[in-house]
Formats: sequence, structure tokens, C-alpha cells
Amino acid sequence: MEYRKIRDEGDDRETGIEDVESLREKSVLLSGAVLDNRLASVGETKTDSHRAKAKWKLKSVVTLALTILTSSQAILIVWSKRAGKYEYSVTTANFLVETLKCAISLVALARIWKKEGVTEDNRLSTTLDEVIVYPIPAALYLVKNLLQYYIFAYVDAPGYQILKNLNIISTGVLYRIILKKRLSEIQWAAFILLTAGCTTAQLNSNSDRVLQTPFQGWVMAIVMALLSGFAGVYTEAIIKKRPSRNINVQNFWLYIFGMGFNAIAILVQDFDAVMKKGFLHGYSPITVLMIFNHALSGIAVSMVMKYADNIVKVYSTSVAMLLTAVVSVYLFGFHLSLAFFLGTTVVSVAIYLHSAGKMQR
Amino acid sequence: MEYRKIRDEGDDRETGIEDVESLREKSVLLSGAVLDNRLASVGETKTDSHRAKAKWKLKSVVTLALTILTSSQAILIVWSKRAGKYEYSVTTANFLVETLKCAISLVALARIWKKEGVTEDNRLSTTLDEVIVYPIPAALYLVKNLLQYYIFAYVDAPGYQILKNLNIISTGVLYRIILKKRLSEIQWAAFILLTAGCTTAQLNSNSDRVLQTPFQGWVMAIVMALLSGFAGVYTEAIIKKRPSRNINVQNFWLYIFGMGFNAIAILVQDFDAVMKKGFLHGYSPITVLMIFNHALSGIAVSMVMKYADNIVKVYSTSVAMLLTAVVSVYLFGFHLSLAFFLGTTVVSVAIYLHSAGKMQR
Repeated sequence: MEYRKIRDEGDDRETGIEDVESLREKSVLLSGAVLDNRLASVGETKTDSHRAKAKWKLKSVVTLALTILTSSQAILIVWSKRAGKYEYSVTTANFLVETLKCAISLVALARIWKKEGVTEDNRLSTTLDEVIVYPIPAALYLVKNLLQYYIFAYVDAPGYQILKNLNIISTGVLYRIILKKRLSEIQWAAFILLTAGCTTAQLNSNSDRVLQTPFQGWVMAIVMALLSGFAGVYTEAIIKKRPSRNINVQNFWLYIFGMGFNAIAILVQDFDAVMKKGFLHGYSPITVLMIFNHALSGIAVSMVMKYADNIVKVYSTSVAMLLTAVVSVYLFGFHLSLAFFLGTTVVSVAIYLHSAGKMQR
Repeated sequence: MEYRKIRDEGDDRETGIEDVESLREKSVLLSGAVLDNRLASVGETKTDSHRAKAKWKLKSVVTLALTILTSSQAILIVWSKRAGKYEYSVTTANFLVETLKCAISLVALARIWKKEGVTEDNRLSTTLDEVIVYPIPAALYLVKNLLQYYIFAYVDAPGYQILKNLNIISTGVLYRIILKKRLSEIQWAAFILLTAGCTTAQLNSNSDRVLQTPFQGWVMAIVMALLSGFAGVYTEAIIKKRPSRNINVQNFWLYIFGMGFNAIAILVQDFDAVMKKGFLHGYSPITVLMIFNHALSGIAVSMVMKYADNIVKVYSTSVAMLLTAVVSVYLFGFHLSLAFFLGTTVVSVAIYLHSAGKMQR
């Protein structure tokens, strides 16, 4: 994968073939680079190949960060379950995650203002035109999370884990329709394989029960996959619409609405419990760790949306799922199944094909 | 798949790109076509596109025949098991299969001699130089079948079914090494997927036991996969070495040695039983059906080797395996597992990729 990526860059440079999309991405990167501390020195004099390299590096770093954070997130969940059940409220934890993300964005912005001064692109103040679309992803996730309570009437938890892989396909389809980005035939084949491989890796002796899911369960699973995919693709559309806008400002506005919606969720769902037991009731050091992890993962997702795309995000989180299983063998003495090895093989081939399919476009 | 194949032919014609391999294949086909009854009218005046079409048709017909025969073979096995255990000797049945194949080849030859007279290419008499390599595949299969008895000391029968998928990989590797034919990177990826997909489709709740296979079991499984792959690739090498030689003559000599080796197997393994109970003891109508099916499948394999190759054979038998499972749902009320659907998806994508990968060579 690493080797292939480097070769891709090489091919791009040698043949000089660049489509409109990658040029747009490059301008996105450049504006990001100017505002980025480490890349501020990348001036106009640098060659295209240097820019492509810097772009690739940034893309790799955020993707790697997302993979590791997502994987450790899953491990923290297993760990917290093993350590005994904690009675903290999920809605207050989600609210704190959004608040922490807002705070981190503001700290990052403060540092940039200090270095570069306040510019058109990094100022916090915004227009209605810019900000009006920002609540949409948060609202979509809220609807999806509400539906989650109802789907368990039709599917059990392991079955839901299997059905969640529909997210991969829905993200690909909506990415194509909404962002109008093209995937080659080979890349579509790779995407189908990614879905099949992830599902295969999660197979266990009870998985066949998911085939007995009633019609309503399938409909809900598909609607949830579409909501989740739409929220992801819409976030990318918002972030990429203003390529020169600083990502920290964009994040701040996304997360402010996240805070708002989660505050509503506390009021609707956990108001009595919070009033009775207190906001932080049942929190443990591991809960705090999980909140920090979720906040950083959230920021990594935004970064991937800015410097890469939803497709990279899906591959990254799929690899994270496999990574979690392997790490769990050492941490918790889990056993890997034959299905896991087969699924991992298929996912690996899918990653290769996604990259190999790029060259033919 | 059908659509893709037609498009491939179209692409070949339009771009005029043809590598040495496909030219050689074409000459193989042509010689086959001249001797083939139905295709005897294909004269020199026909265009290349007509020849390509005839080649594709012949390839499709033999591949389809192999798929259907292999699938019905597996169904007959399930059927015969359900109908109660028959106490016939496997070695005598194998001997009769080889004898029947010889007889069918001779009948086909007699018809050709009547139509076209005896020529250099369709005469039955042969040279030591031509015939000396013919016993090798039969000998390899004999060694493999003997090893089969010993591997069950290390693996159970369902585990052996899983390990048999190593044949796919070994065939691909030996096809590359011995026949020196190239597969594109995408086609190699497809081959790995075919192996993973077939294995996934066969997964059941006991499959994980195969991971506990001891080292000796793995070694034997790999040796058996190599023997089986080598026998297949060697047969293709023998048949393709003399492209103009009539396939029925080549089959006759292959099967004569098959008869010889199976006669030895009867003497070594079942001599006492045959002497005591008789040659056809325990035979039932279904046994006769199975012998006919095996004979026709064997001839179909030879045809695929002549007009297509081992790679096509592997894809064909893999599809037959999936087809068997689907047909068994209707015939025997079998249930399809989620793993089966996932495996079938992966195999389908592999078939697409094998075909799509061709264009890039």
C-alpha cells in the first residue's frame, strides 16, 4: 500500500496527467498549507512535485491518525466493558466530546492568529451564507442515533454490527451522486470487496441470524446507512466548498452545532437523571480517556475530509477495525477466526485495487 | 461476465492490440476448428473477427460444459450419499471412468476419420517422443490420491475441503512458472480473491478448526496442492505443445495411461475385494450415472486445456461449486449462509477483475 502510493505519485509526475479534481485538491492543499504551521514555508518557488509530495504527506498523516485513533477507540470500548459497566450518561459524554473539539479548535486558531494575524480565511466571524449549512450533518447524525434505538426491535446487536457495513456502500454511492466525484470501475469493485471483506472479518457462529432480519429491519438499516453516508458526504461538501477557509474555523462551527444538538439530547433524554445524579455521575478515568479519544478522532475525521475524502475515511476506519481485532489478540487474548483472515485478505486486495484503479482513469 | 467477455473481444478488434499469446491461442483454435466438425467450414477467407468470435464461442461452450458437469457431479455425490451408502469400490469405478473416456475419444475419432480421412494430425499411431510425457499427469494424480489417505491423520474432512482451495493458488503460480504465461497484477489480485471467496463460501461453524492443523498437515496440504496444480498445468503443456494434433488423439493417449495407473491401483488396493465380491459389486444406477458424469467432465477438462487454459478451468470449477450450493437449496432444502453470499460476491468480483485485468496487459 505504502509502495503503491509512492508509485502513484511518481506516475502522476512522469506522465503529467492530472484531472480537474486533483488540481482542485491541490489548491485545497495549498491554501491549507499556507495556513499550516509546518508547511508555511512552502512557497511559490517550490515545484509541483514538492507540492504533490507535501500533499501526499499531509493526507497520509491525517489518515494514519484517523486509523490509529479509531482503532484505539474500539479498544477503549472493549476495555471499559471488561472493567465493568459504568453508569455514565452517553448524552453528557457526547456533549463533552463536542465541547472539547470546540476548545481544541479554538486553541489551534489562537496559535495561528498569534503567528499570522487574523486574515479573511482564519477569522472566526462568519456569514449566514457560510454557516447555514453547518447544522445539517449534526442534525442527520442525531436522527440516525435516534433510529438506532428502534432498529434493535428487529435486529440484535451483533446483527446490527454486520448491517452497519452497508454504510460503506452508501458512502460510495452518495459520494458519487452528491460530490459528483468519479470512481473507476476497478475502484467500485474494490468498494464492493471492502464491504464484503469487512463483513467477512466480523462473521461468527451467530451471524447467519442477520439473514432472518424482517423487512422493516432491512429498511431501517438502509435508511440509517444512507443518513450516515449522507452526513459524511455533506460534511465533506461543506468543508471543501471553501478550500481556502481555515479547517479550525470550519471545525469550530461544525462542533458548535454538535454541542447544541447534544444539549437538546440531554434535555430530552437524560434531564431527570442529570438533575438527580449530577452531570458527571458514573464518570471514570477511562470515560475521560474515551472522551479525549472521541474528540481527537472527530478532528481527524474533519482533517481527512479537508485533505482527503470520504473514500479514504471509509478505508481508514475499515483498516482500524481489522487493527483492533489484531491488537485485541495481544491485549485481551482474543482468538482470530479463519473468517477474519479471509476478510483481511479481501480488504487488503481492495486497498490495492483502489490504488491500482486510480491509474486507469 | 457474459457482457464483459463480449466487450473484451470488441476491444481487441478495435484497438488491434494482440500479444503473442493470443496469436498462439488463435492458431491453436484454428487447428482445432479445422478438425472440428461444426467449424470445418471456417475457411481462410473469413476475417480475423470471425475467427475471434468462433474461438470465443468454442471457449465458452467447453467452459460452460465443464461448469455444468462439475456442478452436477457434486450434486450426484450429495444425492448418492443421501440415497444410502453404496459399497462399490472406488478404484474399479475410476478404472471404468478412464475406459469410458477412451471409448468416447475413439468414437469421436472414428467419426472424424470417416469425414476427413486419416491425416497426420488425427492418426492414432504416435511416436515415443510424443507419448513419453503422457503418463506424467496420471502418475501425479496417483501420488496425490495416495497422499489423500494420509492427510486425514492431521485434518478432518471439512478442514480438507477448506485446504483444497490452496489448489487455486498453486495452479496460478505453476501456470506462471511452467507455462510462462503472464497474468496482470489485477488478474493476480483476482486470483487471490477467488481463493478467499471460495473459502469464505464454504465457511461453517467448524471451519476454525482448520487453523489448528499441525505443521505436517499444512506441509501435506501444500504438497498436494502443488501436485494437483502441476498435473493440471502439465496436461495443458502436453496438449498445447502440438496445437494441430487432434484433441481426441491426445485424450486417447492421456486416458490409456489413466486406465493403466487405475488398474495398478485396483491390484494394490482392492484386489481381494474384487476377487471375492466381483468387479461391479455394489454398483447402482446412480453409480453408473456418476461414472458417465466423471467421464464427460474429464473430457470437458481436456477441451478447456486445449481451447482455453488452467486459469479458466479454476474459475469454471469455482463457479460450479457455488452453483452446486444454490441448486442444493432447491433439491435438498439446504440453507445458504451469510458467508456463502459474501464468498459469492467476492468470487463474482474476482471474475469481473480477471476479465477487466486482461485489457491492461
